[in-house]
Amino acid sequence: MEFNVEMKYVLDTMWLLVTGMLVMWMAAGFAMLESGLTQAKNTVTILTKNITVYAFACIMYWVIGYNLMYGEGNAVFGLGLGMSGITNSDHSVLSDFFFQVVFVATAASIVSGAVAERMKYWSFVVFTLVLTALIYPIQGHWTWGGTALGGLLSGFTDFAGSTIVHSVGGWAALAGVLLLGARKGKYPEGGGVRPIPGSNLPLATLGTFVLWLGWFGFNGGSQLALGSKGDVDAVALVIVNTNMAASAGAVAAVIMTQLLYRRIDLSMVLNGALSGLVAITAGPNYSSVGVAGLIGAIGGVLVVFAVPMFDKLKIDDPVGALSVHLMNGIWGTLAVGIFNPEVSFFTLLVGVVVIGVFVFATSFVTWFVIKKAMGLRVSEQEELEGLDRHEFGMEAYPEFRPGFEVG
Amino acid sequence: MEFNVEMKYVLDTMWLLVTGMLVMWMAAGFAMLESGLTQAKNTVTILTKNITVYAFACIMYWVIGYNLMYGEGNAVFGLGLGMSGITNSDHSVLSDFFFQVVFVATAASIVSGAVAERMKYWSFVVFTLVLTALIYPIQGHWTWGGTALGGLLSGFTDFAGSTIVHSVGGWAALAGVLLLGARKGKYPEGGGVRPIPGSNLPLATLGTFVLWLGWFGFNGGSQLALGSKGDVDAVALVIVNTNMAASAGAVAAVIMTQLLYRRIDLSMVLNGALSGLVAITAGPNYSSVGVAGLIGAIGGVLVVFAVPMFDKLKIDDPVGALSVHLMNGIWGTLAVGIFNPEVSFFTLLVGVVVIGVFVFATSFVTWFVIKKAMGLRVSEQEELEGLDRHEFGMEAYPEFRPGFEVG
Amino acid sequence: MEFNVEMKYVLDTMWLLVTGMLVMWMAAGFAMLESGLTQAKNTVTILTKNITVYAFACIMYWVIGYNLMYGEGNAVFGLGLGMSGITNSDHSVLSDFFFQVVFVATAASIVSGAVAERMKYWSFVVFTLVLTALIYPIQGHWTWGGTALGGLLSGFTDFAGSTIVHSVGGWAALAGVLLLGARKGKYPEGGGVRPIPGSNLPLATLGTFVLWLGWFGFNGGSQLALGSKGDVDAVALVIVNTNMAASAGAVAAVIMTQLLYRRIDLSMVLNGALSGLVAITAGPNYSSVGVAGLIGAIGGVLVVFAVPMFDKLKIDDPVGALSVHLMNGIWGTLAVGIFNPEVSFFTLLVGVVVIGVFVFATSFVTWFVIKKAMGLRVSEQEELEGLDRHEFGMEAYPEFRPGFEVG
Repeated sequence: MEFNVEMKYVLDTMWLLVTGMLVMWMAAGFAMLESGLTQAKNTVTILTKNITVYAFACIMYWVIGYNLMYGEGNAVFGLGLGMSGITNSDHSVLSDFFFQVVFVATAASIVSGAVAERMKYWSFVVFTLVLTALIYPIQGHWTWGGTALGGLLSGFTDFAGSTIVHSVGGWAALAGVLLLGARKGKYPEGGGVRPIPGSNLPLATLGTFVLWLGWFGFNGGSQLALGSKGDVDAVALVIVNTNMAASAGAVAAVIMTQLLYRRIDLSMVLNGALSGLVAITAGPNYSSVGVAGLIGAIGGVLVVFAVPMFDKLKIDDPVGALSVHLMNGIWGTLAVGIFNPEVSFFTLLVGVVVIGVFVFATSFVTWFVIKKAMGLRVSEQEELEGLDRHEFGMEAYPEFRPGFEVG
Repeated sequence: MEFNVEMKYVLDTMWLLVTGMLVMWMAAGFAMLESGLTQAKNTVTILTKNITVYAFACIMYWVIGYNLMYGEGNAVFGLGLGMSGITNSDHSVLSDFFFQVVFVATAASIVSGAVAERMKYWSFVVFTLVLTALIYPIQGHWTWGGTALGGLLSGFTDFAGSTIVHSVGGWAALAGVLLLGARKGKYPEGGGVRPIPGSNLPLATLGTFVLWLGWFGFNGGSQLALGSKGDVDAVALVIVNTNMAASAGAVAAVIMTQLLYRRIDLSMVLNGALSGLVAITAGPNYSSVGVAGLIGAIGGVLVVFAVPMFDKLKIDDPVGALSVHLMNGIWGTLAVGIFNPEVSFFTLLVGVVVIGVFVFATSFVTWFVIKKAMGLRVSEQEELEGLDRHEFGMEAYPEFRPGFEVG
Repeated sequence: MEFNVEMKYVLDTMWLLVTGMLVMWMAAGFAMLESGLTQAKNTVTILTKNITVYAFACIMYWVIGYNLMYGEGNAVFGLGLGMSGITNSDHSVLSDFFFQVVFVATAASIVSGAVAERMKYWSFVVFTLVLTALIYPIQGHWTWGGTALGGLLSGFTDFAGSTIVHSVGGWAALAGVLLLGARKGKYPEGGGVRPIPGSNLPLATLGTFVLWLGWFGFNGGSQLALGSKGDVDAVALVIVNTNMAASAGAVAAVIMTQLLYRRIDLSMVLNGALSGLVAITAGPNYSSVGVAGLIGAIGGVLVVFAVPMFDKLKIDDPVGALSVHLMNGIWGTLAVGIFNPEVSFFTLLVGVVVIGVFVFATSFVTWFVIKKAMGLRVSEQEELEGLDRHEFGMEAYPEFRPGFEVG
């Protein structure tokens, strides 16, 4: 290998490894965000879900998902196991696997927040296995895998996955939430919505910072290369735009909640920042810094309206995952069609719909089968007393609350 | 571009991006540190301040601050908006912007700790806008911007910003604290000082570790280059010295508090580590590892005396930001004049004074105008019951304390 | 220096710095893990121990340890102080020091968890000084220092330190625990084991994620090079294997606790992930991804049996450090002898035994002298009321629990 080719190989591979680590770190962010925004009595459950969903996703994607997504095969799915038959001369295949596997874990993490506080742990795990082994990789095969589903999706573009990762997690979550139902008491019979405040906002804020940092890897690594002036300049633009969209999302949300409610809502500010991040993910590589800020700000406004909208529809999403990842995954993808003259809005819309229908339908069927086979929801008493006490027999903060007897 | 020139461009740009991410991460560190060292009833406020101050700073510095600091113009300030007219052939301009914007956010974050627990959120935000758009960039234009204020500051050197970032944050905070006054009950009428313990020391410790890690980027990235033997050797020295100064600061503080109080004070140990970090920031690139340790250790000793000194002056700084960032920002800058024979102590002193006077005076005027226009301080009742309940209508830990009715 | 040689030097040095930062970050992980898994009344103590153990370790290893390990000398130990006489033409010596110093801090951090909740702070510090200045570097001189103890250890291999770092920390901790005794009430007179639940499981989970992330640096940096296709490919394999072993360890533990206890134990899941990480550390560079998963899964199973086994022996280890670092440090080292046909199982066994005997014996003597000279254990009343109240005079969460009067 010539020296200049080798240097590019080294730098590109290194970049996938470093940015992959940052995306892995997002798993910690989801764990902190979700356990901060839910009740203390369910905290052990949500922590366990978050760390094991990452672990299960890594295993399933290695066993079959990666090959289903990037392996040879047909227009609908790849074939084979592990890394068999997958080659790459631009960078190490293992570094590519590492960068991709942390993305599938991200998609799975999105689901856990939306179904929190009433779903059985093992039912969630089974869904995760299907999502990460089959559903996510198949739609990924059409897009990042390059087959365009035999042409139906040709022209569809999604730089780092507003649709392919975030809305996929969102659609899968929506299907689950519809079959699962709302938490007891969230929508009282007399009407209205009972707020169920998060138990630990410093944790939720920490989680948001972790996700923000991790997103530099999520988007910055999606250039899949670093070792040339063109690549590193592109990465710099991606990172600045990512930071600007998040900033604008947070600022939009803080201003909106002040204007609408006369009080600031921190959880909305956190979701505003995350919405900006989701929204810019489809196209941080083409837009100017100002446009990135605009896309992020619209994301921050959207989330402020989406959260009460889902509540009006009695779709109970404890952490706002649908408002952040589904709504803004769609918005971010379509924004590319608005601001990038080289991409067709219609083509993007087709992609959003095709992938949305596929993921929602297959997820719904999967959840439905799990519901029939093993049930989705814990008993009413377990929900009331907290999942931690029943499925786990331990408490997250045993000294800060009235204790209970294990056993 | 020749290959060896391109490689250096790629590596230098990559290094600014990676270290810039680490500095962004410091925003999380400040959020955790400050919310850990203050009372639970004000935690939502301080979390919101920390995440939005970062967001506002990024936006304001992009709109005008960056050009005011690095743009063409005169000896006092640059001109223009965004990145217009700013070029760089050594690395991507966007990577440079990213590395610089996270520094201005750091300066602004320092302020939030000192004014915590009694300042109105929006008054703080307005000050942040002025600090990050005008005050910080103008003094930065004289130093890192290269004009030396028409010669007055020629010879002044500050590697990563003991003065330019940390003492700037400290002076801005001091002006605010003087106009704001102490928290109710901190200095009882009968004399003495009432300790108001931090509510969550694991968070404060986490924040310190985050800052320590982020500082490797803060100082290590300030070499602004990586892609040659000379550069990477310099970066290695900077990082080892940074680590040694922090270690020595922590050790000095733990020994001092044991000797002085016969008990160890964890919050002082945390501030000792941070003091070592601030102190080494002006010159981690020239000193030997042993001297770096000495500078850090003196920083750790200084903070143990500075905290009660500010209390004696009835300058109420809930998290010790003045003792850490102002005192040690000055100490660290002057230490270069003591230990580096190539730099004049007097020149450094002039720089410390000129920048100090400018930042304190402009900050004081800004705070004063805000005080007249919209007030700085929440009502006595709001302070007593907690800012979270009034400005935010939410609690940080709603399940761990007696609840309250929102509305 | 020729350009291609210089590029390799730059990349290798940069990689040691970046991965060294990740290993430093593990200190934060230990602090969060250990304070999350112990009682709130001892949290300030354990936080202080974790941040200062890192600081003391960095100072002692710089003063003497680094030279004792890598300096010229004889087969048993090196000589000299600081970096005197140590040279390296492949990468910056300072970057090498940085990468090594964070490893010794890791070994010392392992000890703090096992002796938590009943040891005097300063006794622990004195042991740390001896461990990091003498015990760790001497055994490191035999292995990574290259002398093979005059041939006795020739052929012994340990890629990133399952034995050299993790079991060393474990043996040092075991010696301390034996001399220190169990926490009051842990093993009631009537028999059985009283569970003492951790006070803050979100912190413990965060700590695990931090350690997981940091481990990519721990193992990925141990290639000690990056700047060639061969090196970067090796690093990619190391990182993928590290991630897979951790995932398999977590999954094994979650399944095992469900099967054995009919309930999931989150703290066991966390220790399962960590066990997978410790186990793969000796050989992430040779095994296939599947074998890495197997090694990690066995680690996750081992820990589920090791924790009750230590309890049966009345060896009280509040955070499971012995089960994770000692048991799996041994397992991971021996696993290389099982799965790597080029390495002799017997040679590995000799290394495990020789290093184990040396570290246990010297640690035992050190602890014994400290016990005679200044005592190891706090008074019964201090243990009952919490170490924080006596040695520190402050509480970790003062607002969430009945307060106490300082003084």
